Amino acid sequence: MPSIEAEVLATNLAFYEAFARGDLDAFDALWAQDAPVACIHPGWGALHGREEVMASWRAIFGSGGQRIRCTQASAQVLGDCAYVICGETLDGGELVATNVFCREGGTWKIVLHQAGPVHRRVERRPKPSTEKPN
Amino acid sequence: MPSIEAEVLATNLAFYEAFARGDLDAFDALWAQDAPVACIHPGWGALHGREEVMASWRAIFGSGGQRIRCTQASAQVLGDCAYVICGETLDGGELVATNVFCREGGTWKIVLHQAGPVHRRVERRPKPSTEKPN
Repeated sequence: MPSIEAEVLATNLAFYEAFARGDLDAFDALWAQDAPVACIHPGWGALHGREEVMASWRAIFGSGGQRIRCTQASAQVLGDCAYVICGETLDGGELVATNVFCREGGTWKIVLHQAGPVHRRVERRPKPSTEKPN
Repeated sequence: MPSIEAEVLATNLAFYEAFARGDLDAFDALWAQDAPVACIHPGWGALHGREEVMASWRAIFGSGGQRIRCTQASAQVLGDCAYVICGETLDGGELVATNVFCREGGTWKIVLHQAGPVHRRVERRPKPSTEKPN
């Protein structure tokens, strides 16, 4: 695996580990300070800006620990940004999440998190004969 | 509004207009050709790669038109990437979406779309006294 993708995946894993530990300081430090951040919790509307986003996480962390496990994470790097798509396994069910990262001071920081429920497993379709070549 | 944000919002709007018109060719042309694309439809697992993503949209477009309207779109630019968060109003309800863009050949292209249902409106919280300064 290319090392840049590995760096992004390590930051993504740190995000879920801090979440599972309920370690708000470590969690906070993973979010960008300068870049504009946003967050969409499952079923919620969008939260914009560090203040609103971190207030939501404080409320979530304050309501007790969360058994959460990140699964099947894959990272795609787009220059100084990257995104990870992964599953989130919780006691209450299965979610799918997008996490967007950018570099700040040479370190990957999270700028955007959206998680939503999965009701339908993806079926692998046969390759359509009309598929455009990539 | 800075012109770069306006460019991103114009591409985001073109995405929803092509969707509403059922114009698959125009819609396809808005997605990145070189950058890795992904898509998470509401309730679905993640789709990775242009072939899988566009096959899902062909199926959606093929099942008839979609009355969809993009609302409250806001763009944040992160160098050669950007993200838009917006609402999606459909006959079946209200969604919230993240769209991530990157530049290809000087043009903004979509690389990632995730939409999920909104069950809970965001309440504006009073500013906590312990809020860290930004």
